[in-house]
Amino acid sequence: MFPKIIDPEKIEEESFRIIEAEVGPHAFSDLEFQIARRVVHATADFEFIKTLRFHPDAITSGMDALRSGASIVADVEMIQSGISKVGLKPFGGAVHCYISDEDVIASAKSLGITRAICSMRKAAKTDAAIYAVGNAPTALFELIRLVQEGVISPALIVGVPVGFVSAVESKEALLGLKTPFMTALGRKGGTPVAVAIVNALLRLAR
Amino acid sequence: MFPKIIDPEKIEEESFRIIEAEVGPHAFSDLEFQIARRVVHATADFEFIKTLRFHPDAITSGMDALRSGASIVADVEMIQSGISKVGLKPFGGAVHCYISDEDVIASAKSLGITRAICSMRKAAKTDAAIYAVGNAPTALFELIRLVQEGVISPALIVGVPVGFVSAVESKEALLGLKTPFMTALGRKGGTPVAVAIVNALLRLAR
Repeated sequence: MFPKIIDPEKIEEESFRIIEAEVGPHAFSDLEFQIARRVVHATADFEFIKTLRFHPDAITSGMDALRSGASIVADVEMIQSGISKVGLKPFGGAVHCYISDEDVIASAKSLGITRAICSMRKAAKTDAAIYAVGNAPTALFELIRLVQEGVISPALIVGVPVGFVSAVESKEALLGLKTPFMTALGRKGGTPVAVAIVNALLRLAR
Repeated sequence: MFPKIIDPEKIEEESFRIIEAEVGPHAFSDLEFQIARRVVHATADFEFIKTLRFHPDAITSGMDALRSGASIVADVEMIQSGISKVGLKPFGGAVHCYISDEDVIASAKSLGITRAICSMRKAAKTDAAIYAVGNAPTALFELIRLVQEGVISPALIVGVPVGFVSAVESKEALLGLKTPFMTALGRKGGTPVAVAIVNALLRLAR
């Protein structure tokens, strides 16, 4: 009844063996699959194999940014918490999340919009190069607007909000950008997907 | 193209309307469904409607514990980060996570077992009454062992680890406990599921 495998490295190895066997043939490049299998590992959901989309420059641009010490902005604290500090440390980058900042909360309240929108407006004033959105479609829509209006020009947008209101539309809108992106079409996504993507990219960048 | 609804309360209201319409008739009690719909909201995955299981005393026992200021132990920091501090504040409880503690890391290394196991052993020495496991099956198996050996007697175990190695088995083992539990059978689960359950319970406890 108790677990047969308790060595953490062997657990991961065995998980990837199962995932690769169940995925079978796929259309991802080698680097893309390194990321895709970590998304499946984090969610136990093979639907992501069908829904993940990579801008052709996404992995290279993301790795280059990480290697040059770029900062990452997350829409929610769970992503900030989940991104590997050990993985980030050798490059010198940091992860920021502004959603609980007092000025963000105040402006959201006064404008009657989401804190997620206001946190992206705040992020746009920094030198952040990678954005990871795993929760709020409104954050992703705001990022798209900021890109389209030439306010920001990120190295990578990881846009995987989850949900029933605007999530699908926000990710379809992301497909139209020239900015490097990674996304998962449909309603599904979430913080573990965003974290798995960024942490996989950190491993690739090493 | 841009979102039609940007008022956060209206987004949530519309999400629940969609979820309830798509779920249709179900076998949950009213209180259980308050929790189940938040799990679907967090994951956009209706499979949880089929896999969620509630010990008959789980909600009452969990609410009572929260109201009396019980502390919560999380297996990973993402859960600690996601549990609503605003929701917890009126009751006086706190959320702890020991997985990155130096003594936990050291003992995991020396024993060749997961940090998750060692973090649960550390938690068992505290007065924590609620355990939220969203990541590591080994943490849940260790909790079950600690309960069976009479070392701990939690008010509630939220056991929803995700994955391909031991996750299914750990959740099936949880079903055999007399200790109040909430779980989601199968491979799926994860930190957003654990966070959605605890935050829904915090709302019910108010």
